[in-house]
Amino acid sequence: MRPRGCAIGVDFGTNSCRALLVDLRHGNELATHVFPYPTGEAGVILDRRDPHLARQNPADYIDGFIACVASVVRQARKVKGFAPQQVVGIGVDTTGSTPLPVDARGWPLAMTRKFARHPAAQAWLWKDHTGHAEAAAITERARQTGAPYLSTCGGAYSSEWFWSKIWHCKQSAPEVFHAAHSWVEACDFIPAFVTGKLDPASLPRSICAAGHKAMYAEQWGGLPSEKFLSSLDPELAALRGRLYNQAVSSDRVAGFLLADIARQVGLPQGIPVAVGAFDAHHGAVGAGIRPGTLVKIIGTSTCDMLVAPAGMRLKDIPGICGQVPGSIVPGMTGLEAGQSAVGDIFLWFANRLQPGGRSGSAAIEALTREAAKQGPGESGLLALDWNNGNRSILVDPLLSGLLVGQTLHTTAPEIFRALIEATAFGARTIIQRFEESGVPVREVVNCGGIAEKSPFLMQIYADVCNRPMRISRSSQTCALGAAIFGGVVGGAYRNTAAAQRAMTGVKDVVYRPQRASARMYGELYAIYRDLHDAFGRTGKHPPMDDVMKRLIALRSRVRGA
Amino acid sequence: MRPRGCAIGVDFGTNSCRALLVDLRHGNELATHVFPYPTGEAGVILDRRDPHLARQNPADYIDGFIACVASVVRQARKVKGFAPQQVVGIGVDTTGSTPLPVDARGWPLAMTRKFARHPAAQAWLWKDHTGHAEAAAITERARQTGAPYLSTCGGAYSSEWFWSKIWHCKQSAPEVFHAAHSWVEACDFIPAFVTGKLDPASLPRSICAAGHKAMYAEQWGGLPSEKFLSSLDPELAALRGRLYNQAVSSDRVAGFLLADIARQVGLPQGIPVAVGAFDAHHGAVGAGIRPGTLVKIIGTSTCDMLVAPAGMRLKDIPGICGQVPGSIVPGMTGLEAGQSAVGDIFLWFANRLQPGGRSGSAAIEALTREAAKQGPGESGLLALDWNNGNRSILVDPLLSGLLVGQTLHTTAPEIFRALIEATAFGARTIIQRFEESGVPVREVVNCGGIAEKSPFLMQIYADVCNRPMRISRSSQTCALGAAIFGGVVGGAYRNTAAAQRAMTGVKDVVYRPQRASARMYGELYAIYRDLHDAFGRTGKHPPMDDVMKRLIALRSRVRGA
Repeated sequence: MRPRGCAIGVDFGTNSCRALLVDLRHGNELATHVFPYPTGEAGVILDRRDPHLARQNPADYIDGFIACVASVVRQARKVKGFAPQQVVGIGVDTTGSTPLPVDARGWPLAMTRKFARHPAAQAWLWKDHTGHAEAAAITERARQTGAPYLSTCGGAYSSEWFWSKIWHCKQSAPEVFHAAHSWVEACDFIPAFVTGKLDPASLPRSICAAGHKAMYAEQWGGLPSEKFLSSLDPELAALRGRLYNQAVSSDRVAGFLLADIARQVGLPQGIPVAVGAFDAHHGAVGAGIRPGTLVKIIGTSTCDMLVAPAGMRLKDIPGICGQVPGSIVPGMTGLEAGQSAVGDIFLWFANRLQPGGRSGSAAIEALTREAAKQGPGESGLLALDWNNGNRSILVDPLLSGLLVGQTLHTTAPEIFRALIEATAFGARTIIQRFEESGVPVREVVNCGGIAEKSPFLMQIYADVCNRPMRISRSSQTCALGAAIFGGVVGGAYRNTAAAQRAMTGVKDVVYRPQRASARMYGELYAIYRDLHDAFGRTGKHPPMDDVMKRLIALRSRVRGA
Repeated sequence: MRPRGCAIGVDFGTNSCRALLVDLRHGNELATHVFPYPTGEAGVILDRRDPHLARQNPADYIDGFIACVASVVRQARKVKGFAPQQVVGIGVDTTGSTPLPVDARGWPLAMTRKFARHPAAQAWLWKDHTGHAEAAAITERARQTGAPYLSTCGGAYSSEWFWSKIWHCKQSAPEVFHAAHSWVEACDFIPAFVTGKLDPASLPRSICAAGHKAMYAEQWGGLPSEKFLSSLDPELAALRGRLYNQAVSSDRVAGFLLADIARQVGLPQGIPVAVGAFDAHHGAVGAGIRPGTLVKIIGTSTCDMLVAPAGMRLKDIPGICGQVPGSIVPGMTGLEAGQSAVGDIFLWFANRLQPGGRSGSAAIEALTREAAKQGPGESGLLALDWNNGNRSILVDPLLSGLLVGQTLHTTAPEIFRALIEATAFGARTIIQRFEESGVPVREVVNCGGIAEKSPFLMQIYADVCNRPMRISRSSQTCALGAAIFGGVVGGAYRNTAAAQRAMTGVKDVVYRPQRASARMYGELYAIYRDLHDAFGRTGKHPPMDDVMKRLIALRSRVRGA
């Protein structure tokens, strides 16, 4: 018999947050609401002098939670048969690693008068790369000391992650570092805040954030050892004691909705709230992830997620960010990779370099229309997709974009297409790395706004990767994944996989590779890999002296000139 | 005593031609007129399928000559004391190598009914690169056989030059090749046409075109030997006999103005017309070239010209297109280098990728205003200036543009600045090559529209090259140079140098290098040279794995981040 009742998932993205209220029988959406963060530029605090800096105001998260949840409850009241009492649980996901400094009570420094305007006291958004020197030092130290911590997170520590950010805070804003009693990931802060469990000593921590970003692993005793942290900076070792010893999956209850919050959102108090996780991980759950199914969440950046049965022996996979038990589906090992910028690159181009006087999605539509008239190799262009660094498989934020092949006739739509192709080549590189490392990819399910809205892009991905591309049925997989965990902690399903079977699926449309395009992209990918290795891999020197000529030869062949 | 009288120079550019009527005492301009070519896109016949193709309708040249000369004579009649009888001579320059096929009478095939619309029967404009395979084969053959022909033209034959184009015509349009009795450079065709000396057997040929583009050299018996041409293609050897045995400087008379033409332009018949030459060479004369003075003509592309006293022993200079006695100033050896695209790159960017909805010069002004607010290294960007291939010092049309360092915050003005800097780095590379080869550069005089109109660009050139940049006094140096030869063949001066001393000069403004910028550009230039050598030089493999990191480090230092 199918379970009755509803659950709410709340998904905190880069520019806004969204609540989704679903029917637990089949995952159908009853109501949704989006809240754009009011602080900074589209929710992000920037610094003109330093393009690496990206922060967020944690008060926006709380305002967003209340506004979104209140709205979906209000909307659902109009649905026949719905009553707030049917909501059995709430799940939460956020971007990450997005840590924020808190005081001894667990209160964000950014929400105190003293530090309200201090950039270092805010949440350090996932795409903040200010800690790149610290990331490099952590990687270096782990290699020197033979510490095992990097073996399950791709062999290199990223500037996007927990310790790089905290250590950089100490170096660049010691007054904030010293005022902080502890640091909390956004995905832990929100459930703790709405359930009144802010005390850092007992605040439930997500295995997803801990395992993928903070080098936490049960087999090594939790967070990295005091000795290791001390070799980086004694004050990091001291901080370790004020962080946590244990982290858990999202099928565990973080706490129960406070009366005060419940009143504001129109729900009964005491509803269980699941332990949080990152958006991509919940998104993978909402897209129906299971062993052999790669879920690609394609948005401003991508996350590429796989799960392996708990019993499967995994090798270290260089350049793949993490292998964490229970980080995606409880009971399975979660594997995470990703591209630091995808939609962000298209938007950058559309807003900054598109000549038609349009911007944003209107510009992207116009560019797509023109780009769709071209064929692979026809422009003679090739790009690297590193405008925001490279997360997988190079794990290096100190990389940048590159475009080669432009002539005096190159058009904006040609460059736009080359940028899309570059992200597809980046996607292929990740799939290849998984398979080389013994983790089979039998199916690819795509989700996120771009996968839904751009058949053009999905066809290029199918052609470049030379495999079918499927699309998740839900267009809100992250929030749906969060709602699934709301249902699980509310007791509607016996486990996550059972909930996924009932509540997720794929669309009818499948993008299948076209043979001629796939062949041409095979040739272009070989050149991409040479550029990739020349500019991205230390000590690799594939010759560049024929790159322009190979592109011109390909172009001539395609154009029949 | 100063000479009396006037001369007319007619300068045939890429998109239009211009006549200049000057006072021979001091070079002052009495009248000028511009005629845009009516055929094709801005005077150029293009082929969407092949960006290498660029042709021109020779009838446009004749129409242009008549319209422009008639206009300046008409205008000058309003100047007190002027009468058409005071015009002592006419000089002509054109782009080049721009050869056109002619029949046995010397009549252009493009001006016959049968071939009027055939692209291969038109004038093959300098920037037509369709003959790149033929150029490579000529270079290869000269190297194999040890033929000396390339030693004075930079060690590589270009697709922009005479034989590459003619041979490609045979391969791609044999019907035109076989209908052609001979081929004539545009700079020889126009004087021949207006003086009635079209017969290919006696038509006077320019040493400038012959020496720089057709491997003509007196010491080797004129054009390349029959044996050498035969080893390329027997039909080229057969054509040699229908070309020419001798070529001369522009201080020689090509012929005398035909009565019919004279009537149409409002001049007396019988005025001497000087032997033609290329625009850059006449431009150098009009800018006051002399030993030690590098003249840079900065327009859609650049030409970099030097002269060496006839007695000076010159080594071969790899990558410098030519060393030709009398090609610039009669009696001195002319040395020619250049960049295949400069203004063309800026216009391409402004028209195709500038987001403000502006285009052309309005877009360039807006981009310049923003780019001028930045400092060297601040954007983290670096570009190669090869969107139209590389003429010096790589002599390779099968190269393309490259941009590296872009982030998600990169703006259009930042890229625009990087493109300007790239052309400045290209300019520095040429100067360096001259000096390494024992040809001193004591002074740089710039001319052409961009040098006049963009103090911003000239300052970057001064900073990048770390030497003062001067500007020619005349803004029409090519047409002035042509007029100087009109004066010389008209007997107003005893030689070209004497005419130059009276009629040319530099402006008061001098762009001097700023120390801090020059230092920063020194660092950027080192990275440019690594990219230049990696992508442009066969067998050179400078490591690319630190290029992005070096640019980011420089950017961080400049921004103080």
